[in-house]
Amino acid sequence: MSIATIQTRSLLGLKELSQQEIQSILDRAAYWEQHPSKTHNLLNGKFVANMFFENSTRTRTSFEVAEKRLGAEVINFSAAASSVEKGESIYDTVRTLESMGIDAGVIRLKPVGMLAEIAEKIQVPLINAGDGNNEHPTQALLDLYTMQKHFGTVQGLKVAIIGDILHSRVARSNLYALRKFGASVVFCAPDNMRAAELNAPYVSMEEAIQADVVMMLRVQLERHATGMLKSAESYRASYGLTVERAQQMQEHAIIMHPAPVNRNVEIDSELVEAPNSKIFPQMANGVPIRMAVVERALS
Amino acid sequence: MSIATIQTRSLLGLKELSQQEIQSILDRAAYWEQHPSKTHNLLNGKFVANMFFENSTRTRTSFEVAEKRLGAEVINFSAAASSVEKGESIYDTVRTLESMGIDAGVIRLKPVGMLAEIAEKIQVPLINAGDGNNEHPTQALLDLYTMQKHFGTVQGLKVAIIGDILHSRVARSNLYALRKFGASVVFCAPDNMRAAELNAPYVSMEEAIQADVVMMLRVQLERHATGMLKSAESYRASYGLTVERAQQMQEHAIIMHPAPVNRNVEIDSELVEAPNSKIFPQMANGVPIRMAVVERALS
Amino acid sequence: MSIATIQTRSLLGLKELSQQEIQSILDRAAYWEQHPSKTHNLLNGKFVANMFFENSTRTRTSFEVAEKRLGAEVINFSAAASSVEKGESIYDTVRTLESMGIDAGVIRLKPVGMLAEIAEKIQVPLINAGDGNNEHPTQALLDLYTMQKHFGTVQGLKVAIIGDILHSRVARSNLYALRKFGASVVFCAPDNMRAAELNAPYVSMEEAIQADVVMMLRVQLERHATGMLKSAESYRASYGLTVERAQQMQEHAIIMHPAPVNRNVEIDSELVEAPNSKIFPQMANGVPIRMAVVERALS
Repeated sequence: MSIATIQTRSLLGLKELSQQEIQSILDRAAYWEQHPSKTHNLLNGKFVANMFFENSTRTRTSFEVAEKRLGAEVINFSAAASSVEKGESIYDTVRTLESMGIDAGVIRLKPVGMLAEIAEKIQVPLINAGDGNNEHPTQALLDLYTMQKHFGTVQGLKVAIIGDILHSRVARSNLYALRKFGASVVFCAPDNMRAAELNAPYVSMEEAIQADVVMMLRVQLERHATGMLKSAESYRASYGLTVERAQQMQEHAIIMHPAPVNRNVEIDSELVEAPNSKIFPQMANGVPIRMAVVERALS
Repeated sequence: MSIATIQTRSLLGLKELSQQEIQSILDRAAYWEQHPSKTHNLLNGKFVANMFFENSTRTRTSFEVAEKRLGAEVINFSAAASSVEKGESIYDTVRTLESMGIDAGVIRLKPVGMLAEIAEKIQVPLINAGDGNNEHPTQALLDLYTMQKHFGTVQGLKVAIIGDILHSRVARSNLYALRKFGASVVFCAPDNMRAAELNAPYVSMEEAIQADVVMMLRVQLERHATGMLKSAESYRASYGLTVERAQQMQEHAIIMHPAPVNRNVEIDSELVEAPNSKIFPQMANGVPIRMAVVERALS
Repeated sequence: MSIATIQTRSLLGLKELSQQEIQSILDRAAYWEQHPSKTHNLLNGKFVANMFFENSTRTRTSFEVAEKRLGAEVINFSAAASSVEKGESIYDTVRTLESMGIDAGVIRLKPVGMLAEIAEKIQVPLINAGDGNNEHPTQALLDLYTMQKHFGTVQGLKVAIIGDILHSRVARSNLYALRKFGASVVFCAPDNMRAAELNAPYVSMEEAIQADVVMMLRVQLERHATGMLKSAESYRASYGLTVERAQQMQEHAIIMHPAPVNRNVEIDSELVEAPNSKIFPQMANGVPIRMAVVERALS
């Protein structure tokens, strides 16, 4: 198979994908959502390696469920950041798994730009499960899917993404995808968490919570120590979706969050499973989305 | 399915289970013990998540073998205590896996009482693989099974449980179950390892080793540092099953231990595989017991 | 089955294996290399436990792919060296998995001599995935396979093994096997990395790189701190396969390395995927070799 074909089947990000291509993934996910009840034999004999060079249990588990539902053999490989410090080691590991005969790889890593480099040298399709603060395409796909399912269409929606935009691959992938579908995206973030290079307006918290979709980002509490984050309490006061703020949301609006949530930091605990919260439905939607993405990589 | 039905299929502890219900699990385990040689297709397409919020390799592995023998798809999820410090995170994780479509969960966690709370909010059956010092029902079931297999009946047996009763979920689950079956249970423990709330007599080591079943508990060597445990040597001298003490046991009596053992601390190394030791047979019995419990949860 | 039969099906090392026995494994690997494209049902219902008491991701993954290609159920068990410090614990763990009904075990551990002791007490075949500095038989088998495939025969080849011979199980297993096949083996190592007990000549780096096979060993960078290794730079200057040295190799000669490589320490980065490097082909060959070894253990 040619490198060009492999790269077509890879999913490195949503920035370069057409709306039509994205919609075809969403449509296939809808099919899989209708057929969840049994393990399928579609990918019998195919090996998928989940290679996580950054810790993640939720995303890895979601991919694993998706892969097994399709009947694939799953190889889990995780490496603490410490043991794979140098870029070349990550490349060597992916080449190793390729040499062992895997048919596709799901990969999470920290260094931005490395995934694209690796994908050019590798003969099997790769699926980005999050690379640094660059992209997290399957997360944005499941977010889109969740919005389409709720609103019928994403066209014309106003989506506010609130939190640490600077370090967020979720914000970037959503921004790229939502615009292709005709949604308008606004950001809300403290000054030291803004990404100047992303061409989207920053609005106040008051305005943000008037959006159709109020998407909260996870606060990295470990940034606490470095001084980037004053305190969980003060963050909540300024940028948290509190019960009070949620009461000011529009009737038809929904709450989203990529999870895991810090309850009572970026979102009040009472809101996580509120009727207008899509947080757990998002996780449910992640499985058919990843089935569609893995199937696309392997067929 | 109604919450009541799900909770009937869950196994949170033995305290609330009837003798008849317990016996039906033991009977089904006997069936599975007779049919160990192949993987069964019973649970094909069903997903079981092993969620361990406390380290365990033996119990997790035993469940994994049981689940795979039944043909289920297995998702392993383990989280260091450090990364899941707050109770809500454990709940969120279980809800996440539920959202992803798992059909049953096996769960080990530290905080006592949390499992029951979670089970009330979750729509899939949960199996307790050990919760703090509360219960460890599958361990007690395999212990019961081992005793029934050896003695024919548990009725009338005298079972001595020796060691850190205070922190032992194994002691509690065994106590609850053994009494339902008409066994008499005595404890033997140093003063600072007794559980006042458990209504069972404490006896001397001399008396304890005259029981029909001498069940040793694992010493938590890490309590050393905190001063709860003077030293491994002095513990062995006072409460260990030494070769000398074992010689005073009754002819027909058996040695049990939930494992892993600290050789030459709570039990002398020579005794672990002695003819009257059931330690490795207990582990063998764990697989059919867990097959029965997982099957019960899913059918 | 008798212990003698089980031990025949075990693979503890190559030292005691006949050339004929080794060749039959290589021949079977060639068969599996020809049939890589699907999962086979040969070992359906059989359980193989990968028990790693020393960290390894590559070797474990290679075995896992091999086992799953054969249709076996795979149980992964890994224990940090810290939690399994005493020899008896490793034995207890293996006995535990045996009790749970596994059909074969793949095991990596540190203490030399322990594997043979354990294998004598265990009723299931064991496959050595590396034991201390003693043997790493499947690595040497895949190395032999790679050489046979490239040169047609190993007979008469000159193989230079370069690096930390003292601590290398790869060097030992290769030495034992290569001699049975009529190859001549030379070592090249700094004084403090030589193994006096191995009866093979030490040659200079200039001579070593004139061999038919230039096999580099991985430098244990963690020995840095202990003073055994002066520095990565000085090691490379004296014993690294640099681009300059590689240019002095014979036309037909090949580069080998058990991986993972330290790029620019024992081997220059540009050489890892050079046309005469067999490093990634070695990893590819590891899968059919391990299929042959696992199949042999279980049939």
